[in-house]
Order: sequence, then structure tokens, then C-alpha cells
Amino acid sequence: MKNDRPTLLSRIDSPADLRQLDVQDLRTVCREVREHLVDSVSRTGGHLGAGLGAVELTVALHYVFDTPADKLVWDTGHQAYPHKILTGRKDRLASIRQLNGLSGFLKRDESEYDTFGAGHANTAISAALGMAAARDYDGRSNKVVAIVGDGSLTGGMAYEGLNNAGLLKKDMIVILNDNKMVSLSANKPTLWSLHDYFSEALTHPSYNKFKANVWDLTGKLDVFGDRLRVVAGKLERGVKAVVTPGMMFEALGFRYFGPFNGHNVVKLVEVFRHVKDLRGPILLHVITEKGKGYEPAEKDASKLHGVTPFDKETGRSPKSDAPPAYTKVFGQAMVELCRQDPRIVGITAAMPDGTGLDILQQAMPERFFDVGIAEQHAVTFAAGMATEGYVPVVAIYSTFLQRAFDQIAHDVSLQDLSVVFVMDRAGLVGADGPTHHGVLDLSYLRCIPNMVIMAPKDELELRDMLFTAVEHRRGPIALRYPRGNSRGLPPKEGFERIPIGKGETLRRGKDMALLAVGSMVHNSLGAAERLVRHGIDAEVVNMRFVKPLDMDLLNELAGRFSCIMTVEENSIIGGFGSAVAEALMQRPSAPRLKIYGVPDGYVQHGTPAELWTLTGLDAEGIARTALAFYNEAAGVSVRPKGEHSA
Amino acid sequence: MKNDRPTLLSRIDSPADLRQLDVQDLRTVCREVREHLVDSVSRTGGHLGAGLGAVELTVALHYVFDTPADKLVWDTGHQAYPHKILTGRKDRLASIRQLNGLSGFLKRDESEYDTFGAGHANTAISAALGMAAARDYDGRSNKVVAIVGDGSLTGGMAYEGLNNAGLLKKDMIVILNDNKMVSLSANKPTLWSLHDYFSEALTHPSYNKFKANVWDLTGKLDVFGDRLRVVAGKLERGVKAVVTPGMMFEALGFRYFGPFNGHNVVKLVEVFRHVKDLRGPILLHVITEKGKGYEPAEKDASKLHGVTPFDKETGRSPKSDAPPAYTKVFGQAMVELCRQDPRIVGITAAMPDGTGLDILQQAMPERFFDVGIAEQHAVTFAAGMATEGYVPVVAIYSTFLQRAFDQIAHDVSLQDLSVVFVMDRAGLVGADGPTHHGVLDLSYLRCIPNMVIMAPKDELELRDMLFTAVEHRRGPIALRYPRGNSRGLPPKEGFERIPIGKGETLRRGKDMALLAVGSMVHNSLGAAERLVRHGIDAEVVNMRFVKPLDMDLLNELAGRFSCIMTVEENSIIGGFGSAVAEALMQRPSAPRLKIYGVPDGYVQHGTPAELWTLTGLDAEGIARTALAFYNEAAGVSVRPKGEHSA
Repeated sequence: MKNDRPTLLSRIDSPADLRQLDVQDLRTVCREVREHLVDSVSRTGGHLGAGLGAVELTVALHYVFDTPADKLVWDTGHQAYPHKILTGRKDRLASIRQLNGLSGFLKRDESEYDTFGAGHANTAISAALGMAAARDYDGRSNKVVAIVGDGSLTGGMAYEGLNNAGLLKKDMIVILNDNKMVSLSANKPTLWSLHDYFSEALTHPSYNKFKANVWDLTGKLDVFGDRLRVVAGKLERGVKAVVTPGMMFEALGFRYFGPFNGHNVVKLVEVFRHVKDLRGPILLHVITEKGKGYEPAEKDASKLHGVTPFDKETGRSPKSDAPPAYTKVFGQAMVELCRQDPRIVGITAAMPDGTGLDILQQAMPERFFDVGIAEQHAVTFAAGMATEGYVPVVAIYSTFLQRAFDQIAHDVSLQDLSVVFVMDRAGLVGADGPTHHGVLDLSYLRCIPNMVIMAPKDELELRDMLFTAVEHRRGPIALRYPRGNSRGLPPKEGFERIPIGKGETLRRGKDMALLAVGSMVHNSLGAAERLVRHGIDAEVVNMRFVKPLDMDLLNELAGRFSCIMTVEENSIIGGFGSAVAEALMQRPSAPRLKIYGVPDGYVQHGTPAELWTLTGLDAEGIARTALAFYNEAAGVSVRPKGEHSA
Repeated sequence: MKNDRPTLLSRIDSPADLRQLDVQDLRTVCREVREHLVDSVSRTGGHLGAGLGAVELTVALHYVFDTPADKLVWDTGHQAYPHKILTGRKDRLASIRQLNGLSGFLKRDESEYDTFGAGHANTAISAALGMAAARDYDGRSNKVVAIVGDGSLTGGMAYEGLNNAGLLKKDMIVILNDNKMVSLSANKPTLWSLHDYFSEALTHPSYNKFKANVWDLTGKLDVFGDRLRVVAGKLERGVKAVVTPGMMFEALGFRYFGPFNGHNVVKLVEVFRHVKDLRGPILLHVITEKGKGYEPAEKDASKLHGVTPFDKETGRSPKSDAPPAYTKVFGQAMVELCRQDPRIVGITAAMPDGTGLDILQQAMPERFFDVGIAEQHAVTFAAGMATEGYVPVVAIYSTFLQRAFDQIAHDVSLQDLSVVFVMDRAGLVGADGPTHHGVLDLSYLRCIPNMVIMAPKDELELRDMLFTAVEHRRGPIALRYPRGNSRGLPPKEGFERIPIGKGETLRRGKDMALLAVGSMVHNSLGAAERLVRHGIDAEVVNMRFVKPLDMDLLNELAGRFSCIMTVEENSIIGGFGSAVAEALMQRPSAPRLKIYGVPDGYVQHGTPAELWTLTGLDAEGIARTALAFYNEAAGVSVRPKGEHSA
């Protein structure tokens, strides 16, 4: 039976309330935060494992530090649900990742305790250092604490931040929330060299050689009695202090403390109090367990990292009979293609499951690379392989590939290397919101020379485009598709090559043309059906390629229609519609054009369907806009030839 | 008198020839390579200091390794002139960085010895690892060697590569060509924490504490005679081995060797032979001196890094009485603005001189940050400062800011933080060529929400735009200007704010309109003069803003002209012209538009004037294109209202 006594948590509306409690009460607070977290996320879905692992850390931080005057900068934010619970948002946690609800990440305009928003990894150290520099200019004395997962330390930007912090010698604390250490024993693959190093440090040749010397010496000293043995013991501890995980951080100018047990809240409070007022850059190494304190998460390999609503008792989500995700279609196609062609390899940046490359990893582990949260390296590593005749398929979410923009341009495109870019999560991704929406890729890739850019209308076309891409071998080629389930079409054997730069007309019409790519092809077909009711007969074209455009088709359409509307799940700036505008505008006679897509701004989180409705990118919204455009354009003809006005 | 005996170098047309020599002859080869290098670069200009420092390294590498089967991957390529000399290009060195001549960087289609092209830093380790992975798939046994400067190790991508290489355990060698060590003694600022660490390692607290213990112990041991003292001595050496610069690399999974004197070619040969066949990732730390062996370079603070042609005896270039570079105008304006406003700071990514921020560094060192070759960190560090009300001015070359595309979007724009981006070297940069041309920025920034993008037509407008930017404080704002000298206008006191999104008409005309931004404003005025001779009266508009566009002005122009041509020193895809196309295309009636700029491809190196001619972006080329466009469009009117064809 549930205890109906008011909980401690019920009295905590801000960290100030937490700080009223006795340190011994914090264990109870931790338990209650964990219960609240599981209870809430089981109903809404969201990120669970990281938050569960960070409960004691979060409680101790808000207990010791004077937030919000002291700045906590959470990296990425998967781990920040307990932070939300303690900073006045516990009751709204049930709205997390839902339309108009709490963000699943930190968000500056959501709370003064959210000092820096982040859905991409590795940014916290840099941002915190900026805050520390500002504090020093202002002559304030507040503390700045960046909390960074071990995964983020596989990303170069974290290293850039550490390096610069070590040089600037600002007072700041970086907490390394390390939840991989515990899985080391299970001999799981790790993405961070230091993890290997930590576990090997004590078997290190230099260390061993040295240790042998010490033993040698102490053995010899044995005859001289206890006093010298004490000295030798001290000496060994001194060496151990040097040969610890802390070495790299010490080398970068940080004082290293740790590792500490991240689930002993009382000990953490003590540690934080100890280091709080130390000068210069401090690194605290805290070992936590992802999913801690909730058995189904502890037992699950993924630690329930990101979940749909689930049964609190079992941790299981109801089975779905939805069609396979695009992610899975891609992963399976990769296995088929790798079997056919020994020169194809798959590369992911710490997202084997998210990209579907885990399927390749299972089937052909030797053809799979996970390089860590290191998109820049992923792309240039691929470029290196391409120089030797391999065809690397770099699978990175659209939003994360932004990290490698320069490498795509400078290392791949400039050298015209045949690297294939596969962008999952293109378009509005749903619950993850604006940090994760992949709505710039068509724009940022289109300006890169030599680049071919495709977007499939469904899972069969995805397969054929992937095949086309790996067979292309005349420079970089990219394809992008949305998050979520495919259209559920009957599967097809084998692959067909799609002619580069050729679109297809899916519906003939006579009044206007809807030119769509990717996810918007189906929605545009739906819009065309709706337009029939308004007496408008729309042609619908699946352009397939954003670059190169199908100019034959476009010119033919421009000759037949006075109203053309482009539809894309990408920014209306610089993308597919922009390409069509550039092309049509230079024609002697041009139809009227409406560029339709994601507005030039940030779209919040919600379900993909809600976001389509919100932005008018569902069939209904497209039809509505097309109708208004057609009506407004009524009475406006194509620009005829033969007249020349000044 | 010059010795006319045939040199050894004259017999070296490829590394195979080098490998015929006795190892004792290599010193002579080094001297001759150095002479050839100074002789050639003194006449052509180019990068000198880095190459001089890498002579012995290069000779020893090509002597020991079986190039081109063995792969040398040079990071960035400033250091690669000796490599060009030894790989069959010594006679063409005099053409370096000139139109149709050798590239100043590595270039795959220039030589089979150039395994990977690079003008941006930090890419070599990633590319080399990709080559090593490919080699292992192929079952080949060639060696892969990445040669990386210490500066590159301030960039996160190098760390990503090291981390991944340490995990994959591929056989590869990374040579750290460290030319900062020698300047450490001069107490110069360093950008890399490890440099501080190296010099401090032996005064490290842990090390000292340990050493005290050892001394303590050995002191006590003294009475027991020599045998124990030998053991204690061994012991101390063991500890030293652990507390070396190598520690960080060892932690990342590399075996560390060094540091070695990088100017002892015989010793280097010995070292390379020793490590050549070792398994796994190896890091060789080689200490070199930039400018080595050429006195004027050794004495110069910049080590003659990048130079114009100079007098071989003195190392001095002839004084120029050209107008101040845009770079200098910016640097001086920064000092004026920082004096007016205590919240402005300047941030550079290892380019104080290149960006002009060295002027701020001199005048107000406390308001200046150099974060290393770490563009990602630079931007997010700025974002952190902006959250605290500061106005960071991030000055990064257009081409290098590509590295921080994601940070601009995810950390700055999404949070609508007021960070100012100043992009020097926008447009065609000249001799550095395609790796350095800054011709994508208008495209990649335009798709980012909240972003304001400006380009000044001259140095006075640059000042006013910078002032406008630091006063903006309603989100991110960027300005871009070309490499090279300003227009030489009489200087002006103070600053004027430019209304956001407002252009200016510079020349009234009636036949067609030329809409230009930045460097192309002046060229378009020149084109208009030329067009007069063809009887065409062109209006010339300085649009100033690429985002937001001046829609009032644009609509007014669209009403008056049937021919509009946009002119920009940026890709014709996705940039300024594209913005105008997007805007005009949606009007009920649209003029004919010609988008003119840098073609969608790669432009080679040469002088800026040559490249303008080559791409038709000089006044003559613009006039020619405008004329052809006007003539072609003759007889074509604006799209009139009142007609609606199906």
C-alpha cells in the first residue's frame, strides 16, 4: 500500500527549498525524485536512463551550489529531468516533449535554472567557460559547473573547451558524469580511449616496469624494517596518483578529483563542498550507473535511454504493429548492399541504433565503424577510406551532420570523393524539438559543389536511392529521410538504379503543379485530392533530386503551368524551393512560384503529426496554401514573350 | 662565389632517387632543399617558416618510407613545400600559388604523393586512419603516416581522430611536428595546454611530492651504499617516463616516442627505421624550429609564416603604400568600439594577425581571446558570454567558420543570442586557392533563423556595419568582407548605425538594375560605366543586407525594371541572388532575374584580380554578362497582371 504521508519532494518548489533540508534527508529526496521520474516518464515516454543515473548528482549539486546564481550547465540534457523536477517543474514533467509542454532538453526560456540549451553534445564546457569569463569581467563570484557525460568526451569540441579552460585558468568545475565505467567489466565496446586506458592503467608497461622497480626496492628494503616500508608505500601511492584517469585532465590544466561514487548523495555533498571554493579549473570524475534504481532500466542494455510510454512494473512498452521505421529499412538495405559489394562500409557517430547501422553491426561487424560523438572525424575518416577506393556510407542524423559541414565541403566535395551521406531524422523530428529538427540539410548541402542530394518518397525509393548512391562513385551523394515509420508498402527484392537528376510525375493535372520531395510527396498527393473538391486539378511531381534539379521536367512544367508550388520538409530558405526559384527565375518566361516548407524560424516539439499541422505541412495545410496561392494568382498569367518594358 | 658543382638535389626527381643516397648525404640534401626553398619563395612569396622547419623531417620520411606506396598525410600543408621539392615538383616550385601553378597546399590531382589535400587544420589523423582501415581491408602492408603540427592539436577534430585511432588500434604513425616547444622558454603565450604542461611537468605537484619521497628515500638509502642508489635511480627514470608529454597520447591508446630533435636528419632516419614496423598507433614527438636555417626567418617573430616576395639577404619584403587592409580597418574599429563599450570582447581562433584582432590584443589584451584552432569552441564560448550580457565579436575567416556551422545554428541562433560574426577572407581569397575561398558563407548562414547578414561595400561601411552589429543585440548578426586592401577612402571619425535590412541606390538608371553586395558593389558600378558605352543605363544598388532583404526597395525595383541582375562574391547557389529569386518569384509580377556570382564549382588559386577575371566578377565580366542578359531578355517584359492561363 502506498504511503500517503506528504513527501519531501512535495515541499520542494525550488532548490532553495531543497537547501533547507538536513543532508541526511537527501537520500529520501533522491528516492522520491526517482519515483517521480519513473512514474512520469512511464506515462509520457522520454529519456529515462540518463536521468535515473544523475539523481544523486543533481540533488547534491542544487544542495551545495547556490543556483540559479551559481550556473549549472548540463551537456546535452538527457540527464536533466531530475534538474527539472527540483527547479519548479515537477508538476509539469508530465507534459514533457508534448506540444506546448516542457522541453525534453534544457531551454533558456523555460527556466532561469536552464543556463544553456543543448540537444547536441559537447557544448557545455565551452558555454560554461564563456560564463566564467563573463563573471570575472563583472567581478562576480558565482560558481560555474558544467556536467558532461563520458560520451561527450569522445567529441572534439569538449577537448577544445578543456584545452582552452586549462589555459585561461578560470575558476570552473567540470563534472564528468561517467556511466560507462560500470559496463567496462562486461567487456562492452567503448568509444572513448580513456575508458580502455582507465581499465588498463594499472597494467600499463611503464607503470608495471616502475612497479617492478618499487617491488624490487621494497623487497630489498624489507630487511631494514618498517620505517622504510612506509616510505616505499607512500611512494607507490604517489605514482598511482600520477597514473590515474586524471592524467589527461591534469595535462590539460585541470585539477582532477575522483573517481567518486555518484550514487552516494551524502558523499557527493561532501565532495562538492570540498571543491566548491577551489581556484582554477577542476575536474570531478563521478561514476554513475545509467538507469540506476529502477530495475527494468538497470537490466536493459539500452538502460531505457529514450523510451515510449511503458508499464512501470515491467519497463516494457506495448508492442507496435506499425510498418518498419525508415531507420530499419536503411539498416537492412545496408546489409544487402555490403553483401553484394565488398567496398561498402557503414560509419556512425555514436548512433548505431538510431541510424539502423546496428543491423549491419550485428550482421557484418567488420564492415561497421562507430567513431564516437565525432561527426567531423566520421566524415574525414570516410574521406580517407574513399581515397583508397572504398565507398563509405556515413549515417548521421540531419541535425548532427551540421557538425561536419566543413568536412563535407573541404575534405569530401573539394576532392570529389565518393562518400555517401545518409541523413536520418530529416525534417521535423517530433518530441525532441528544435535542437533536433533536421530542416537545414537541403540548404547547407545544396551550396556545396559536386553534391548530389536526394530524398525518397517512401521506403522502396529509399532502398533504390541508397543503391544509386553507393553505385554513383562520381563524388559525394546524400539522401535524407524522416524519423518514424515507413509507409508500409509490400517489400521488394533487389534494387533499381534511379537516373541522377530525374523526377517522376505521380499525378497529372491541369491547373497547377505541386513539386515535392521526400516526406512531402505523399502529403502533396493528399493535398491534390483535397483540391479536387475545390475544383482544382493539381499535378503532383516527385522531384526526387534537390540537386541536380530535373531541368527538362521543370521547363516542361513551367511551360504548362502558371502556378507552381514547391513543398519540402526543410527551411523555405536556400533549399529545394529556392533551387526551383533560381532555375525558373532565369527563364525567359516564368510561372508564379510559391515556396512552401518549414518557416524560417524554430518549430517547437510535439508529435510529428502535430508539428505538420502546426506548420501546415500536412495534406490539409498544403491544400489550404495551394488553394490560397491559386486563387491569389488567378488572373495572373505566365510572363509572356515579346514585350519589353523599361 | 657560388659552387657550380651539380647539387645532390638536382639528381632527385622522386623519393626513389633520394633513397639511393647514403644516409650521410642527407645533411647536404637538407641544406640544398632549404636553399631551393628560400630561393624560390623569396621570388614568389608563399609559406616559408613551416617548410624550413620541416626539411629534415621531410627528407627522413621520404628516405625511410616507401612513398608513394606508403602514405604521408600532411596536415594543413604549409609545411609541405619540401615535400613538393622532393616529389618531382622542385622546378615548378617557382609557380607556387600562381594561376595554373602549383598549389600552396597538398592537392590530390597534383601528385600521387599528395595523398590528401588540406588547407584547413586537424584533418590528417582522421584521413590517415581511414587509409589505414582501407589498407587492412585490402590486406596491404603499406605504412600510413600523419604529420601534424602542434597548433593542430588545439583543434578538437585531431582529438577525435586520436581517440578513434587509439580504439581501432590500426598500425599508423602520427608525427607531432612541434615547433612551439622552443619558444616556450621565451615565455610566449601558447594555445595548447599540453605545452604548459610539458614545461611544468617536472614541477608538477604529484611529481614533486613523489620526487620528495624518492629523495627522502634515497637520502635514507645513502648510508647503504651504491647498489640501492642505482635502484632508486632506475625508479626515478621510470617515473619520469610516466610523467612526460607522452602521457596524454598514451592515455589515448598511442605509444609515445620522443621528444626528438627534428633537425638531426640522421637521428630521424634512425628513429623512423626503429618505429616503422611497430604495430598499433604510434606517436612520434619531434621538436622543430619554424624558420630553421634561414636567419631572417629564425629572428622574425612570425618566422616568415606566410610572405610576399622578399629580399633573400634581409628577409624583408618591399614596403607597400597600399591602402590599409580591411583586416586592419576592422582591428582598429574594434579597439574604438571596445573603448566605448565595456561589454564588447574579441574572439579569434588562432588568427590574431590574420583577423586584425592583434590590434585589440595589443591595445586591450584583457578584452581579447585566442582559443586555438578551435572554431567550434570559439562560437559556443561566445554564446556562453552572450548569455551573461556580453557582446562577443567572433572574428574567423569565412572558410574556417564553416567548422562552426552547427554551433552558430544550435548554440547561438536557436537561443537568439547576440553574437557578432565577422568573416574576413570572404569571396575569392587569391593565392591560397579553393581550400580557403570563402564563397559559401552567404548560403550557409542565410538558412539559419534569426541571422542578420551584411556585407560592406568599402572600409567606411565596414566600420558602420561593425558598429551596427555590436549595437544590434537582438540575436546573431554577421558581416563579411574580402581579403586585401580597402578602397583607400579618407578616414572618418565615429560610427553611424545602418538601419537593419536597408539598401542604398548608388546609381540611377532606367534599363536594368544591378543589385550587388560587398566587394561586388564597386565592380558593379564599374560595369554600369561600361554598359553606358553599349547604350544601357543601369541602376546600381548596394543591397548591404543579404538577410533580411530590403523588400520595399526590391518591390520598387521589380516594378520599374524587367531585367534585374544580382552580383555577389559567393556561390550562385543559396546566397544573395537566391534570396532575391525567392522574394521576386513570389510576386504577382516578376522581372527577369540573372543570378551572378561564383560558379557552383571550385575556383583555383591566383591573384584576386586574376580570379575575378577568370570567373567574370570584375567590372568587365559583370558588364559582359549584364549586356548578354539584357539583350537576351530584350522583348521580354515583366509578367503583367490580369491574365491567367492554365
